[in-house]
Amino acid sequence: MKKRLEAFQNWLVEEKIDVAILTSSENVFYYSNFFSDPHERVLAIVLFQNEAPFLVCPQMEVETARAAGFDQTIIGYKDTENAWDKVTAEIDKRVSQVNRVAVEKTHMNMERYEILQKAYPNSQFISAEEKLNQLRTIKDQVEIEKLRKACELADYAIEVGVNAIKEGISELEIVAAIEYEMKKKGVQKMSFETTVLAGAKAASPHGVPGMATVKKGDFVLFDLGIVYEGYCSDITRTVAFGDVSEENRKVYDTVLQAQLAAVEASRPGITCAELDQTARKMISNAGYGEYFTHRLGHGLGISVHEYPSITETNELKLQPGMVYTIEPGIYIPEKVGVRIEDDIVITKDGAEVLTKYPKELQVIS
Amino acid sequence: MKKRLEAFQNWLVEEKIDVAILTSSENVFYYSNFFSDPHERVLAIVLFQNEAPFLVCPQMEVETARAAGFDQTIIGYKDTENAWDKVTAEIDKRVSQVNRVAVEKTHMNMERYEILQKAYPNSQFISAEEKLNQLRTIKDQVEIEKLRKACELADYAIEVGVNAIKEGISELEIVAAIEYEMKKKGVQKMSFETTVLAGAKAASPHGVPGMATVKKGDFVLFDLGIVYEGYCSDITRTVAFGDVSEENRKVYDTVLQAQLAAVEASRPGITCAELDQTARKMISNAGYGEYFTHRLGHGLGISVHEYPSITETNELKLQPGMVYTIEPGIYIPEKVGVRIEDDIVITKDGAEVLTKYPKELQVIS
Repeated sequence: MKKRLEAFQNWLVEEKIDVAILTSSENVFYYSNFFSDPHERVLAIVLFQNEAPFLVCPQMEVETARAAGFDQTIIGYKDTENAWDKVTAEIDKRVSQVNRVAVEKTHMNMERYEILQKAYPNSQFISAEEKLNQLRTIKDQVEIEKLRKACELADYAIEVGVNAIKEGISELEIVAAIEYEMKKKGVQKMSFETTVLAGAKAASPHGVPGMATVKKGDFVLFDLGIVYEGYCSDITRTVAFGDVSEENRKVYDTVLQAQLAAVEASRPGITCAELDQTARKMISNAGYGEYFTHRLGHGLGISVHEYPSITETNELKLQPGMVYTIEPGIYIPEKVGVRIEDDIVITKDGAEVLTKYPKELQVIS
Repeated sequence: MKKRLEAFQNWLVEEKIDVAILTSSENVFYYSNFFSDPHERVLAIVLFQNEAPFLVCPQMEVETARAAGFDQTIIGYKDTENAWDKVTAEIDKRVSQVNRVAVEKTHMNMERYEILQKAYPNSQFISAEEKLNQLRTIKDQVEIEKLRKACELADYAIEVGVNAIKEGISELEIVAAIEYEMKKKGVQKMSFETTVLAGAKAASPHGVPGMATVKKGDFVLFDLGIVYEGYCSDITRTVAFGDVSEENRKVYDTVLQAQLAAVEASRPGITCAELDQTARKMISNAGYGEYFTHRLGHGLGISVHEYPSITETNELKLQPGMVYTIEPGIYIPEKVGVRIEDDIVITKDGAEVLTKYPKELQVIS
């Protein structure tokens, strides 16, 4: 945590920013270890070049924030109090003149911005997001341990889902079976809405599970993740129910080979673009290029989608501690959809795959 | 829908607002019947004094929006395109000079605001939220039908939860059992995180279900809701597992009598404050006033919390078509928590209770 703070404070010094007011749950968590969804209420961590940060939260959450391990000043406020008055009073104690304020411009809303503009009428407001996104890409050991555990639970969730497959069961029933077992394991939150799609429905990369039932000859696609102590996993597996047509097998094998190649290529120094192209080329060569309609993957951590973005054009070089997904897919409309996704962490000289559920085509009879 | 649009357009005329750009999923849904969570992408409905509104959404969602029933112009954009350029170009086709723009100031973020400020540098930006909140309080028949169905499903969810209670089952397992059955019924979304709290844990109005198990002598509190075609229900029931202590029974009866009195008092013309005070007085008279720590209730509809707010001080008069919760509670720290909550709609000459699960104390042996 100390290192995280220092890295951000260095940026404040470089950019001559007097104060940073971060309001997203994710960044508050990153710098305080306290996660909370405050809905319309104010939650913020306020950081300075040299002073210790302070946290602002509803009065009823002060103890929880303290228990989460934040050992600096916590400013609680009641619903009858004006939270921003308290925030600016605390800032004024620490900084004599506020010229430059960093905020998350995609999170800070207009109502709050107008309040801060009134409080600091001569200040410039600078976006902190690009910097925060960059800082968060390199995970420390504590973060990687949490991700490892989130991935273990995701592996188990896939196992539960695969075991639930039977003639006539609906997509939503399989989702329910998975989430039931996860809750029994103490999982309080999934990374996103658990997705189970059968047959041609899996050909839509944005399909939503419904009452459609699994039939012999279908591929069944699972895409899900678990939140473990604030960190998100994200896994996709596709399995076959009953006999597999020749074309389906070819599609599956193509995705698998592309996925394995990208995993194999993952190491410090390779660019995101090279990684994407490694998988994309194999899919194109097999004749399915037009059906791989999205990027190869995305970073993950406190958010299920964060930096780095593994696209055809991102020239960012991978570094040790970066965690991301590798998830090539082929989606032939009205016919079949296959995607295989692992979570991976870059190590000193290669990469470690955190999700371990088998990837060879599994045929359920 | 036509009536809804007209009511909002009348406000634009009164306030001399040239264009309203609404970006929250809820208000886009209210004026287009298309519900979507666009994450960081742009989703907006743009409304004018006299022109037809248009919808802006990612290209891949255009067909879904059309299928949802929006029959005016839909502007789709690809991820490689600048959505705001397209929005302002469409606005410029319809309005020669933009002087006043209405937006949702608690939803519009700074990044977008800066883009709009550049596009309309001499414009005033006005908050549309108070007006939208007011307009949405009066539900039409279509909305009430959806809420009725959402409440029916909530009743069933409580039944499932109550039937799941047994010695040693954990709160999270009961949550899992409820959500499993809901998914089997085709429910895709709960209104909020399903809450099941046993024993003293129910004494915290913001408790979170965990691995704690249900024991004889506990009260078990359920608070949950279902989203049906975009509309949210919200119900709370408290039941007893095993013998009920004298104090627990007194607490329960006090909450029930207060709840019934507020339901009975609900009719056009009564103020929110009077309604809250009706219940609050009964709880205070029984000696538990200090343990009823929140407002009596809140409106609900597309959002699970909307206008009207049923507080001690809100002098708003209830009108036919308003839908809200009545949910008094008593929370004695470390001891017991009881809350009973119904959803209710004001009719021409009284009120109809939409949630129907029994409220007499149910004792499970």
